[in-house]
Amino acid sequence: MIWANGNFQLLQDNYLFSTIARKVKDYQAAHPDADIIRLGIGDVTLPLPEAVLKAMHIAVDEMGRIETFKGYRSDAGYEFLRQAIADNDYKAVGASVDIDEIFISDGAKNDTANFTDVFDGGNVIAITDPVYPVYMDSNVIAGNGGKVQPDGKFTRIKLLPCTAESGFMPDLPRHKVDVIYLCSPNNPTGTVMDREALKMWVDYARRHGSLILFDSAYEAYIRDDSLPHSIYEIEGARDVAVEFRSFSKTAGFTGLRCSYTVVPREIKARVKEGGTASLNKMWARRQDTMFNGVPYIVQRGAEAVYTPEGQAQIKKNIDYYMRNAGDIRRCFENLGCLVFGGENAPYIWLKIPEGYSSWQYFDKLLAEHNIVGTPGSGFGACGEGYFRLTGFGSRENTMKAIERLKNGGK
Amino acid sequence: MIWANGNFQLLQDNYLFSTIARKVKDYQAAHPDADIIRLGIGDVTLPLPEAVLKAMHIAVDEMGRIETFKGYRSDAGYEFLRQAIADNDYKAVGASVDIDEIFISDGAKNDTANFTDVFDGGNVIAITDPVYPVYMDSNVIAGNGGKVQPDGKFTRIKLLPCTAESGFMPDLPRHKVDVIYLCSPNNPTGTVMDREALKMWVDYARRHGSLILFDSAYEAYIRDDSLPHSIYEIEGARDVAVEFRSFSKTAGFTGLRCSYTVVPREIKARVKEGGTASLNKMWARRQDTMFNGVPYIVQRGAEAVYTPEGQAQIKKNIDYYMRNAGDIRRCFENLGCLVFGGENAPYIWLKIPEGYSSWQYFDKLLAEHNIVGTPGSGFGACGEGYFRLTGFGSRENTMKAIERLKNGGK
Repeated sequence: MIWANGNFQLLQDNYLFSTIARKVKDYQAAHPDADIIRLGIGDVTLPLPEAVLKAMHIAVDEMGRIETFKGYRSDAGYEFLRQAIADNDYKAVGASVDIDEIFISDGAKNDTANFTDVFDGGNVIAITDPVYPVYMDSNVIAGNGGKVQPDGKFTRIKLLPCTAESGFMPDLPRHKVDVIYLCSPNNPTGTVMDREALKMWVDYARRHGSLILFDSAYEAYIRDDSLPHSIYEIEGARDVAVEFRSFSKTAGFTGLRCSYTVVPREIKARVKEGGTASLNKMWARRQDTMFNGVPYIVQRGAEAVYTPEGQAQIKKNIDYYMRNAGDIRRCFENLGCLVFGGENAPYIWLKIPEGYSSWQYFDKLLAEHNIVGTPGSGFGACGEGYFRLTGFGSRENTMKAIERLKNGGK
Repeated sequence: MIWANGNFQLLQDNYLFSTIARKVKDYQAAHPDADIIRLGIGDVTLPLPEAVLKAMHIAVDEMGRIETFKGYRSDAGYEFLRQAIADNDYKAVGASVDIDEIFISDGAKNDTANFTDVFDGGNVIAITDPVYPVYMDSNVIAGNGGKVQPDGKFTRIKLLPCTAESGFMPDLPRHKVDVIYLCSPNNPTGTVMDREALKMWVDYARRHGSLILFDSAYEAYIRDDSLPHSIYEIEGARDVAVEFRSFSKTAGFTGLRCSYTVVPREIKARVKEGGTASLNKMWARRQDTMFNGVPYIVQRGAEAVYTPEGQAQIKKNIDYYMRNAGDIRRCFENLGCLVFGGENAPYIWLKIPEGYSSWQYFDKLLAEHNIVGTPGSGFGACGEGYFRLTGFGSRENTMKAIERLKNGGK
């Protein structure tokens, strides 16, 4: 019998969102009449913008004519899309990113997870707690975690606790770390790193030769003009930071699958046998060998996001979700809860009432109000005692959920 | 500075097809008037079937209405597609595969490469030589290769030489191997394993507790009814074999990206800490954590392949490519070459004239006839002295290439 990758045994039995899906399914089966409102998973509910649909219809037609049919093409993506990204997402905010540094992919989840392929188990990995579970799980699968200690922690994964006291901002680690995962606007806490906080991390990384993996999948939800959308708005970041972005939340692409990763040419990594390697070249080779690009029609859809119509349409959708988020935030504030997020992010992160664990509060909200949220403990130990809700529901459902909470209590 | 995954240093500098693309680009730049015919990379050239286009237009419209919009959904794929696969690709040939054993993905390249995530570096990996380079490269990146020996070979990768004498069929290894990559119809040799050959491997795997990773991305090109399309047509295969299939060559999806992997529930792997793990569950967890599914519109396109119209349309396209392949085969036979493939596969594998290496013959064909093929040595040491051509060109270009060869010689 072959040897399995034993690291899978170190993972929790189920991926967080699969567990929630199963619980909700079981509840619905037991209560067929329950009108369940899903404000748990961060999935969009509005249809795709008109500009995207139009571009995709044209692209489908192109795939049907021999003169315009598209087969295999660069794994890194079509130049038309990479150029639109370089111009609109970077040049426009004063950051310089070349198209050779942009890699189109089919999801920020995939990219953040697959990026573990280019580094080695010899690094110390810093991951904030709470955070999106994929950073931890993918490193565990890759064997980058090191040994499991008696307390269940991994020797090579340094958790950076984020608490209400510090506004869920991580402190710099006391001991040197090599790879640092930062997510801003944060999933799940909805908090956003300002320029000063981000500069502190870039400076740390430059001082210690660390690599920052910056997940800004929710940057489009930032309303405060003083907050940075890209880590490359911070001086010196090109030497130390990789950035992950996605069209999922920006333009409703969760079922369409398009994202991108920026790997500046400046970033180097040490090789055990001596010398250094370019991370940009390593990622290019990784994608070349293990990926075959995003569908042409989807890339044309993503390109359309950058047209004036596309921009107006996604802004309208984001406004819609942010109105929901703001209302949910205010609802819980009125119920006397401590609440984070919901102002520059679609996530509302609330301190749950005394006497409940995160999963108990999940069960309570589901049973009493038929509302589905996400238990904070699913994002790490420091998430215990907190609960995540999202502004991604329909306006109608969000208002209905708020009504239920107002009447029935938190 | 962080530690790089040093295994990247063990790869050849460039992925084979990227090297070819660069060479052709350079040649075209130096000879702007050259009418280059690309019969190298295995990329389709006919537009998508009408049934697929129609299904995708409808799906795009669905994504534009709030009632029918699709966001995140199961990473393993929509049931409508998995059911169509179970019924048409398996039940129809007498093989039993459940939809829970089918995982929809965005490419057989990705899946064969990513499958290295579920096994451990402690296995001995058998890879035929010559073969599609991704099996080797992905195992090297994953660190499954072991140490590099003075002769450049890896301690844990056992190459199974395939030669003209044995019709490019691999012999059973003399020493026990754990993981076995088989590709049939074969890329690059175009040869197909018959039931007897496949049964020999299934029996070997059952005897030794090995795992067969069976890549049948080209099964739709089999014309001889006696040849198996799926490894599950062989008794006992469900205990030992994972199968990879793709819509790329079957239905022209190279630019659309859809494939699937079958992992039967019976397959177990050993865990170092004791006990066994289900490979089906491990792959499910891997995809759950590191993948987010194939676009809904693409899955609807793939479903349409199984309609009567879709089947008729893909058959017509495959006939077109196979007519090309047959003509190329005959052309080289008439020129006195030993030729394999081209009868149940879109690849023609020819023994090149004495005095040329594979890359020298590549340069010669490009310079003398402006024809691009793929050097056999790119697929492994045993591919040296051979050359791969494909039937995927347009009819016009294929006829033109044959004309040039007839007039100018091989």
